[in-house]
Amino acid sequence: MASSGGLFGAVLGRGAAAARTSDVAVLQALLDTQAALARAHAAVGSAPAAAVALILQACEGGYDVAAVGAAAGAGGNPVVPLVREIGHRLPTSATAYLHLGATSQDVMDTAWMLVARRSLTALDDDLAAVAAALATLADRHRDDVVTGRTLLQAATPTTFGLVAATWLTGVDGVRARLSTVGATLPVQLGGAVGTLAATDLDDAGTAALLAAFAAETGLAEPVLAWHAMRLPITDLAGALGAAAGVAGTIAHDVVLFAQTEVAELREHAPGRGGSSTMPHKANPIAAISVRASAMRAPGLVATLFAALDSEHQRAAGGWHGEWLPLRDLLCCTGSAVSWLRESLDSLVVDVGRMRGGVEPTSAAEAVAGLLTPHLGREAAHDLVARVASAALADGRPFAQALVSDPQAAQLLDPGQVDRLLDPARADVGHAGLFVDRALAAHAAPPPAQETP
Amino acid sequence: MASSGGLFGAVLGRGAAAARTSDVAVLQALLDTQAALARAHAAVGSAPAAAVALILQACEGGYDVAAVGAAAGAGGNPVVPLVREIGHRLPTSATAYLHLGATSQDVMDTAWMLVARRSLTALDDDLAAVAAALATLADRHRDDVVTGRTLLQAATPTTFGLVAATWLTGVDGVRARLSTVGATLPVQLGGAVGTLAATDLDDAGTAALLAAFAAETGLAEPVLAWHAMRLPITDLAGALGAAAGVAGTIAHDVVLFAQTEVAELREHAPGRGGSSTMPHKANPIAAISVRASAMRAPGLVATLFAALDSEHQRAAGGWHGEWLPLRDLLCCTGSAVSWLRESLDSLVVDVGRMRGGVEPTSAAEAVAGLLTPHLGREAAHDLVARVASAALADGRPFAQALVSDPQAAQLLDPGQVDRLLDPARADVGHAGLFVDRALAAHAAPPPAQETP
Amino acid sequence: MASSGGLFGAVLGRGAAAARTSDVAVLQALLDTQAALARAHAAVGSAPAAAVALILQACEGGYDVAAVGAAAGAGGNPVVPLVREIGHRLPTSATAYLHLGATSQDVMDTAWMLVARRSLTALDDDLAAVAAALATLADRHRDDVVTGRTLLQAATPTTFGLVAATWLTGVDGVRARLSTVGATLPVQLGGAVGTLAATDLDDAGTAALLAAFAAETGLAEPVLAWHAMRLPITDLAGALGAAAGVAGTIAHDVVLFAQTEVAELREHAPGRGGSSTMPHKANPIAAISVRASAMRAPGLVATLFAALDSEHQRAAGGWHGEWLPLRDLLCCTGSAVSWLRESLDSLVVDVGRMRGGVEPTSAAEAVAGLLTPHLGREAAHDLVARVASAALADGRPFAQALVSDPQAAQLLDPGQVDRLLDPARADVGHAGLFVDRALAAHAAPPPAQETP
Amino acid sequence: MASSGGLFGAVLGRGAAAARTSDVAVLQALLDTQAALARAHAAVGSAPAAAVALILQACEGGYDVAAVGAAAGAGGNPVVPLVREIGHRLPTSATAYLHLGATSQDVMDTAWMLVARRSLTALDDDLAAVAAALATLADRHRDDVVTGRTLLQAATPTTFGLVAATWLTGVDGVRARLSTVGATLPVQLGGAVGTLAATDLDDAGTAALLAAFAAETGLAEPVLAWHAMRLPITDLAGALGAAAGVAGTIAHDVVLFAQTEVAELREHAPGRGGSSTMPHKANPIAAISVRASAMRAPGLVATLFAALDSEHQRAAGGWHGEWLPLRDLLCCTGSAVSWLRESLDSLVVDVGRMRGGVEPTSAAEAVAGLLTPHLGREAAHDLVARVASAALADGRPFAQALVSDPQAAQLLDPGQVDRLLDPARADVGHAGLFVDRALAAHAAPPPAQETP
Repeated sequence: MASSGGLFGAVLGRGAAAARTSDVAVLQALLDTQAALARAHAAVGSAPAAAVALILQACEGGYDVAAVGAAAGAGGNPVVPLVREIGHRLPTSATAYLHLGATSQDVMDTAWMLVARRSLTALDDDLAAVAAALATLADRHRDDVVTGRTLLQAATPTTFGLVAATWLTGVDGVRARLSTVGATLPVQLGGAVGTLAATDLDDAGTAALLAAFAAETGLAEPVLAWHAMRLPITDLAGALGAAAGVAGTIAHDVVLFAQTEVAELREHAPGRGGSSTMPHKANPIAAISVRASAMRAPGLVATLFAALDSEHQRAAGGWHGEWLPLRDLLCCTGSAVSWLRESLDSLVVDVGRMRGGVEPTSAAEAVAGLLTPHLGREAAHDLVARVASAALADGRPFAQALVSDPQAAQLLDPGQVDRLLDPARADVGHAGLFVDRALAAHAAPPPAQETP
Repeated sequence: MASSGGLFGAVLGRGAAAARTSDVAVLQALLDTQAALARAHAAVGSAPAAAVALILQACEGGYDVAAVGAAAGAGGNPVVPLVREIGHRLPTSATAYLHLGATSQDVMDTAWMLVARRSLTALDDDLAAVAAALATLADRHRDDVVTGRTLLQAATPTTFGLVAATWLTGVDGVRARLSTVGATLPVQLGGAVGTLAATDLDDAGTAALLAAFAAETGLAEPVLAWHAMRLPITDLAGALGAAAGVAGTIAHDVVLFAQTEVAELREHAPGRGGSSTMPHKANPIAAISVRASAMRAPGLVATLFAALDSEHQRAAGGWHGEWLPLRDLLCCTGSAVSWLRESLDSLVVDVGRMRGGVEPTSAAEAVAGLLTPHLGREAAHDLVARVASAALADGRPFAQALVSDPQAAQLLDPGQVDRLLDPARADVGHAGLFVDRALAAHAAPPPAQETP
Repeated sequence: MASSGGLFGAVLGRGAAAARTSDVAVLQALLDTQAALARAHAAVGSAPAAAVALILQACEGGYDVAAVGAAAGAGGNPVVPLVREIGHRLPTSATAYLHLGATSQDVMDTAWMLVARRSLTALDDDLAAVAAALATLADRHRDDVVTGRTLLQAATPTTFGLVAATWLTGVDGVRARLSTVGATLPVQLGGAVGTLAATDLDDAGTAALLAAFAAETGLAEPVLAWHAMRLPITDLAGALGAAAGVAGTIAHDVVLFAQTEVAELREHAPGRGGSSTMPHKANPIAAISVRASAMRAPGLVATLFAALDSEHQRAAGGWHGEWLPLRDLLCCTGSAVSWLRESLDSLVVDVGRMRGGVEPTSAAEAVAGLLTPHLGREAAHDLVARVASAALADGRPFAQALVSDPQAAQLLDPGQVDRLLDPARADVGHAGLFVDRALAAHAAPPPAQETP
Repeated sequence: MASSGGLFGAVLGRGAAAARTSDVAVLQALLDTQAALARAHAAVGSAPAAAVALILQACEGGYDVAAVGAAAGAGGNPVVPLVREIGHRLPTSATAYLHLGATSQDVMDTAWMLVARRSLTALDDDLAAVAAALATLADRHRDDVVTGRTLLQAATPTTFGLVAATWLTGVDGVRARLSTVGATLPVQLGGAVGTLAATDLDDAGTAALLAAFAAETGLAEPVLAWHAMRLPITDLAGALGAAAGVAGTIAHDVVLFAQTEVAELREHAPGRGGSSTMPHKANPIAAISVRASAMRAPGLVATLFAALDSEHQRAAGGWHGEWLPLRDLLCCTGSAVSWLRESLDSLVVDVGRMRGGVEPTSAAEAVAGLLTPHLGREAAHDLVARVASAALADGRPFAQALVSDPQAAQLLDPGQVDRLLDPARADVGHAGLFVDRALAAHAAPPPAQETP
């Protein structure tokens, strides 16, 4: 698996998103944006083909990240020095067609949209693999019983298939959201203050230029400049935050299932999960690492939503302040979903232990159901609660407590009770139905996405 | 305008969302949910009509919020005591059909979805009025020049129509997002652990029950229970956070336009905006109050995204922890958009002051454009920057500095410069085109929303 | 236990902080502030005793929260209408001495500091009880062995006393932080823009007035007005956020210990912890409710830190936006610590189950320690890891796998191994030492707090 | 000024904190921690001098960040592979004394505390320079009048000296908080689960080892291991968040003062502040960059407070999840304060423009004060408000409106009014007093800091 390198990349910068949001990748996206703008000018006739050809050549690459970055302090962004650097490779006559009509923010925002889209593609690769793995788990374990747990207490039984199917709906859900957002990421092109004043084009030509720029980048065409109306950023934030959160909640469940005392799931990946001091440890490192990355998302989401607050035609700090949180959110979400894929790839399901872990008390709800016609809803519930509590206090099995309660004994058919308390016949309700529904929804083609 | 009452409601709980998220409103939504569930059982034949009729009657209202709330501590939610209270109004025979198949979370989650949808309707009333006001402003001021301001510095001119049109795209954008989310809010129905085990229905009946429950509430039908896969909550959080943020950024601009030194906009609302100590103050209180409410949103959004992290079949705290942040987010967004409506209703636009405020230096970009064919992009930019900087340092007008610079004087036609520097002929580029695009997009019917 | 009432107060508004931050309590704090200001004027001679006596009488109470609140919308805060209401109870001659020299923010901020201090007192009552309960647990279970768990996997053993002692250091830590902050909460008094211009006092008299105001309220005296330099708010936010977080992490551990599969701790509180559907459930509702309240804190902390960003002499929205998040943070922290106290009061410790749960593999670190002199650090670690992994794969006990490994068998003395693997002789290291240190630190008088 | 390099370092990673938190710096801190631990063992006699000398030599440096980082994925942290790498440089006999008694988290946490302390030193250098610059401004402009602005509206006048003095109290305040926190950053040493089991030391020796480790690192000695009780992290988060926020609010004021329409302050730094398209722009880039960095802080603070929620003896993800947010918070705060220093170093104060900007209406409060003895508080306020509102509506000067109001004209002495409305005699109240207090507090030695 790729990682962003450095001291923490293998743990916290897993997956392809790290590389696709690196300084080198952002610089290339800035160049790609300038190239697309030049091609758009050529398409609408506002730049001569010869000059555009030179610009395209100059935008192929070969710039020094460190030098451009060092020069970015003076103007507050790397576009200013990069335009100068590109210009130095052009004859003077061609420089008039470089960055033509654009302001720094046009180029920077468009480049970030390209970076985001390229990162989303990587994320979706991992999420597609995760969804496929979960669909397989849901199908394979459709009818394998496991303890249902609410408020971290054993509740009534369910199936591991339904657990996996529920995870699957989350992953399918965030894929749909990311896909919707990815399809609507817009170019930015407004010139200094959103009026696109700095070209010789008339209104029709200006509209054509904007459309051509969108076409050249493959991004969406906005109604007008969104220099200070940052919904594309919060759309990304929302969908990425959801993806990180869904990855995190699945991983949390894996970690809980893998607890020594539960041990119904474990990650089996030779060479992974050791401890510096405790040689016997087999930590579910992949799931833990999902959580470590996912927990960064809510704070980053908040920062990006706060950055909606932009003054007039360009925010005095709020715009620049978006860049690193957006990058971090792409990265940590990418790392989370990449690690989740690794966790699922290494997952060992202990069906026997799951079955054996189902508690007889989990049938209490069903017992109460049997008593309700006799006693009414409330009294039935209270009777069973009293019996369960007494069993817990005395250390007796629930079944024994039940049959030795005079009122319960009188109202219940012992055979019924036996059947209810037999783990092999645990009542998993309509778990299978819901597994099937999730698999069907997963298999269905997604709805055609509309621009929100 | 309605407000939530209390000491702070008129300032921070403006609009109808406050009442629609009150304790009384939530309690009613809990009752409506029980009623809808009973009707759904009747529809699929799993409850007799007579019992259902009694349940519907018992769910009409008349419960004491304080008493139900006080009893909620024992079980951790108000559904448990409310079911008991409703049951006390029913004959024992009917209690078996109350809350049938449901767990507390089913009822609570569905009730919150009803509360959210009812609040979104109120929000959209205010947002529609805001959008209409902005469309009017955009149209009326389509060609009224105003200083464009980037990084809070005068830049090139634009029109106030384009300012309003940009605001409009934000408001239209969040309306579309809220509408999409509102159409997908799902019912919750899974029973104890999502298997819907506690009814006598078979798979087909269970599927029918879920569909009927959705139909009775008017909410969407989920694939399976989302007890611990909380995307509907984060969808709400994202759309509400965007709405609060868009309201906040518009209000921020109003506050900046209303500064004493700028005074291009002001709120005129007799009796509003006074100060306890400074009798001359006419504070733009509505816009300020938008900001006060909107700033709460990012933190609440973060909390709701963090709550995606739910253990197993029901979170041990994370579920309960969602309720108040969700309510607060509905309320503060509602307050923000309600105050924004009031701000715009009272807005006075000083077109003359806007025109008079346009700085001659704002033509610097255009002057550089005239020089570029002679000097190339970079040298042209640097020459004009040098002249503007010298003018600022000497306190001389930019035009004078320009004609007294030997190089500039040689290359520029004085008539051209005069035209560029005439505020009456300020170059607002294609501002009108973008106003028209925004108005056309606003007038277009929204795309049919697909479930994401 | 007190609660804030309403539908959710018993679950999410537990403890005395809810009442101490209510609308009624804030209104009283506003009146107390006006009274203290009048007394301060009397003390320095800038208001006649007779007028002050009338003001004090008028500030005793009897105002209608709803009426004051409803009138607050016009000016953006409740101080404006409240001053009018108080004035209506005074002869005209006395009104000149009401609110004398103050601006709305002076009164509002000082009142919030009073509300905060009163809430902190309530919080500290609960935290003191929590600390006492934890000290008792640490002492009582000083030597009772329990599985240590890292990354939610069984690690080496520790004692439950050390678990409780670690919790205790957290609670003692947040008590010290809250105490430091509580002692430094300042009055606010600057008049319209912080110059205290609107009195007839000279510099010395002004300084004396500020000191007298602080003395009358019992709050600290600031160097100058902090209308737009909000460190007292973020100090509160930090200490409250820490308190909520510490309560939350302790409660999380309780919930994990109480899992059905672990069952080493449980809450025993008759009538608490039931389920609407599952009669056998005994949920640790108190600990769960701690978590539900504590999870709100980080988002609220972020909002209050973001509100440091205040424009000029008074923020255009940021100030008003602080009020509800500050109240919410006081409330949710108060609810968390109040529930934590209830959780600990009901806690049942199953020492036998703790001892029985210690895994033989937990001695693996010690086994590696025995091998290190023979093999070096890395090879010893790898050998034991290999044996533990093989045992897990084969389902054999670790001891058996160890003695059947040729290399291990050759280097280890069987008696040594037996001792290491005997749960009754589990090596809990210096757990007792650290328990004693925590108890000693708890018993020590806190350091005299300095104003930071 | 140093920056973290890369594409964005010069804008968003300014100052020395970036380098002090780099991968290389963290790796060195990990080595320093191992060296300090070895020296501590030598000090208490649990490791032979010869082995320790070899370990110290091996910890001097020369490790490859990329290699260590790449190997960190397997165990979830870079300590595991780094210990192996160090071990490879040691004879087998010495490896037993490397990492002796420690777990990965001991080393990682201690290293982060070293990184934090080193970063705080850099931050304090910048903050000290900022404070000195502000003290100079406060002193120099003690009596220079400037418009006071509340809710972004002109209010009564103040002095620029008091503005700077207020900023100074904020900077002095965060220096004190950072200093307190810096002095309490603790070492971490607990072994696998906090019992320090893996050495041969008795209790006294263990206590001595912990003390020696603290002494060797210069960090504080904790009562016990804080593996899962993370108050040192939230202490850092709170103090850093406050520092970023204070820097941000000062920078915000600078940006507002520098608005083209206000122009009372500007940054003058040749070569800084240009625009890619608008050659005339002189953007206050330093202040804007402060804001861009500071806005990241609240979200990071929230993430670190959320990470208090740690399971049992070591969090399953929450611990790993702290690393990057802590680093980011150190970096963005460092960048903010470094840019703030640059902003202040380049600040040009236009005293004349400040004086000329004071509005006559700012005397309205004082006029109302003159009327209060005649009319009572409320009627006086209302009369002046009516006059001011009429003047605004008619476009007449406030003085003229005042003398032409019959009631006002009758009660006011025209000479008094003239004096009040003379900008040269603007009533700045006790601004000078408060400047002097802030300068005195700044000059006073800080109180001896106690460990909270």
